[in-house]
Amino acid sequence: MLAYLNGQFLPRADAAVPVEDRGFVFGDGVYEVWRVVGGRLFEAERHLARLSSGLRELRIPAPDLVDADRLTAIADRLLADDNLLDGEATFYVEVTRGVAPRTHQFPSGRISPTVFAMANAFKPAEELRRAGAACITMPDIRWLRCDIKTIQLLPNVLGKQAAAEAGALDVLFVRDGVITETSHANVLAVIDGAIRTHPTNNLILPGVTRAVVLEIARDLHMRVDETPFTPDDLSRVSEVFLAGTTTDVMPITRVDDVVIGDGKPGPVATTLFKELRRRLDALAQSRAVSAAATASA
Amino acid sequence: MLAYLNGQFLPRADAAVPVEDRGFVFGDGVYEVWRVVGGRLFEAERHLARLSSGLRELRIPAPDLVDADRLTAIADRLLADDNLLDGEATFYVEVTRGVAPRTHQFPSGRISPTVFAMANAFKPAEELRRAGAACITMPDIRWLRCDIKTIQLLPNVLGKQAAAEAGALDVLFVRDGVITETSHANVLAVIDGAIRTHPTNNLILPGVTRAVVLEIARDLHMRVDETPFTPDDLSRVSEVFLAGTTTDVMPITRVDDVVIGDGKPGPVATTLFKELRRRLDALAQSRAVSAAATASA
Repeated sequence: MLAYLNGQFLPRADAAVPVEDRGFVFGDGVYEVWRVVGGRLFEAERHLARLSSGLRELRIPAPDLVDADRLTAIADRLLADDNLLDGEATFYVEVTRGVAPRTHQFPSGRISPTVFAMANAFKPAEELRRAGAACITMPDIRWLRCDIKTIQLLPNVLGKQAAAEAGALDVLFVRDGVITETSHANVLAVIDGAIRTHPTNNLILPGVTRAVVLEIARDLHMRVDETPFTPDDLSRVSEVFLAGTTTDVMPITRVDDVVIGDGKPGPVATTLFKELRRRLDALAQSRAVSAAATASA
Repeated sequence: MLAYLNGQFLPRADAAVPVEDRGFVFGDGVYEVWRVVGGRLFEAERHLARLSSGLRELRIPAPDLVDADRLTAIADRLLADDNLLDGEATFYVEVTRGVAPRTHQFPSGRISPTVFAMANAFKPAEELRRAGAACITMPDIRWLRCDIKTIQLLPNVLGKQAAAEAGALDVLFVRDGVITETSHANVLAVIDGAIRTHPTNNLILPGVTRAVVLEIARDLHMRVDETPFTPDDLSRVSEVFLAGTTTDVMPITRVDDVVIGDGKPGPVATTLFKELRRRLDALAQSRAVSAAATASA
């Protein structure tokens, strides 16, 4: 397996960062994960824009990689080397403020951000999607800038672990009485025929798949209401589902002890997933087509 | 400069952790900083107990280093190699959950925690202490487990940076209308003759220097009231001061545009600092004495 680190491609097992990297001592960095189908980055530009925005928020200078062509070239090489140009994969990029003697404030000298990228094989959870998944609820103890995709992920780690131990897929975080999101996906519900979800503000990550799914819903003339819902609402919702880069649209059929709707994946989630999947397949297909065109040229 | 990494001593410039270390991708770890005087760790046991408690909270198996003798041996070697056995220094230890393929929940296989330690030269800010320092206030946007000394330090980084840009020493975080602590120290005030400070709960780090300073205050029959104070209180407090491992007791003479008391370091802070310094000096001296005893034996 290959990794990209600060301009170099090297075996992932050899890719290491100095112990004084601010990512390692302060969690001072951002990351991004792209879904890859047939070697193509899904919603490449939206993820790149979010990475760019996170770097701006943290005032980390944008490295070379924050450029569509450069990013694609790096992804291509990693995917090719790991035999991931066909089928499903993920592409992970992390940028930290770099290496400097440990002191909280930004380093005074000019330092280069650390840039790490890797590709991984990925298998969507189709069996679970057909059955519907369970979630638990937990207090949302995260910081108040959840809109920045930073590597400050310990509460997400603890939430996901608690879910796993409860035999659930994920955790629904609850803050000030409303459901915000999960450890690594957004959450939506169908209430009185409308799709409800937490508005994009400092309390949730503005999910790329969330945006795509809401776009699809509006295209299909479904009603969308970006008003959060509460744990109490769960007994009257007809559907709950997650949206995320590796989650796609995942029907949630139980939250804690509450069975959602009739306990089966609902029609809204099913419809949205189908259209999302169609877009993923179309992207995968576009590479096959362009590869064939290149081969026959 | 030497570092300790996973059982090995090596040049710090060569000490590196794999990119998939959970400290680097999730901020999944804890750390501790000891003040070192004359080669001795100040309040060694209290810091060690807090490190141990943090590991338990995060369910990271305690590595060998979490043992007073082992810790001292590692510190001794780092301090000796870096010529830090005399004078002032700090000793930093970080423990992360270890290296594993990136997935939020705890790794399923048995993995070893990553253990990193380093010693650094340190110079107390005596000039600033004599003059008194400034702080700014900012909303406390951190997560709700500030009592665990994790490497989730990005809000602290951003706060300290904002303070530096405002020409201030540090930031006073304000949550729900009360002052919690700074980016890396506790904060205390003298109001109506009593020392006031935020109680130890999930919103602040239970500072070792805070505990020592409150102990000293009680020994001196000063009144201590662990009730938080507010930004509005600042116009009527007689003193504000910080307490921290590298901060000692630091008088704060201005917060934002508010001059504290008469704008000079006050008697309570001065008295507490003197006794803290006496304890530090006594510890430094104890090594000199034992070294002399060894030499003459």
